[in-house]
Amino acid sequence: MSITFADPRTLTAAELEEGARFAPRFDAHGLVTAVAQEAGSGRVLMVAHMNAEALSRTIESGEVHYWSRSRKALWKKGETSGNFQHVVEMRTDCDQDAIWLRVKVLGHDATCHTGRRSCFYRTVGLSDGKAMLADDGSKPLFDTEQTYRKPV
Amino acid sequence: MSITFADPRTLTAAELEEGARFAPRFDAHGLVTAVAQEAGSGRVLMVAHMNAEALSRTIESGEVHYWSRSRKALWKKGETSGNFQHVVEMRTDCDQDAIWLRVKVLGHDATCHTGRRSCFYRTVGLSDGKAMLADDGSKPLFDTEQTYRKPV
Repeated sequence: MSITFADPRTLTAAELEEGARFAPRFDAHGLVTAVAQEAGSGRVLMVAHMNAEALSRTIESGEVHYWSRSRKALWKKGETSGNFQHVVEMRTDCDQDAIWLRVKVLGHDATCHTGRRSCFYRTVGLSDGKAMLADDGSKPLFDTEQTYRKPV
Repeated sequence: MSITFADPRTLTAAELEEGARFAPRFDAHGLVTAVAQEAGSGRVLMVAHMNAEALSRTIESGEVHYWSRSRKALWKKGETSGNFQHVVEMRTDCDQDAIWLRVKVLGHDATCHTGRRSCFYRTVGLSDGKAMLADDGSKPLFDTEQTYRKPV
């Protein structure tokens, strides 16, 4: 990992909030939260996590890398599906514990493992005192069964 | 709390991903991640967390509530500054552990405690192998010192 980050514990609150050093505030698991958004449409695509290596590789390569908490592994988005995320712009927030990625999606223009364009394909509403979801009708843009089939 | 959610542990993966029951998958701290976005511009404003009560109150009232991890308290966004967030649309993602809020900001049209419109006022870039931040020039939209002054 060739990119260096500042250590947020060495910065004052003012330096963290107003300064020019990138000092990601990783949580107890070494992660920051990342939000990926379609640069063109503004549609929010997914929320995931990055560790220092994922951040470093993303900044170096311009291709988004996450940390998969379920697989406990570095995850170059699109490595299986071809739906890579190319960084258009990367931002951090006031206390540097979150990342906003404006991206261009390659491949099938899909982000979700269900094949849909965005992981956020259901709206939340109320029905008889119960919180219910309504599908927005978005369809899979690629054959997920074929794409994610495990090698035999 | 009058709104009921489904328990994700009682659902199959297919029900969780494709079903109509809202079954938020709270983490070990009882929280889901929430992303607030300006409904009009698509600008990402902030990333924060919600517990069951914050989710319930948000759905009931149409005004966004979070859980403040630093203050360990329910937090109606705007309760001090007047910069309330009115829900335009609320979505959840495929595995129901994240919330996307499209909001209209009231008050000063500001979200950040620094007074700025968005918490994401700095872009991340590379300079001599170091990850550096560039301020986008956005200015405080209200007097934060006056607004957040503690009563004497």
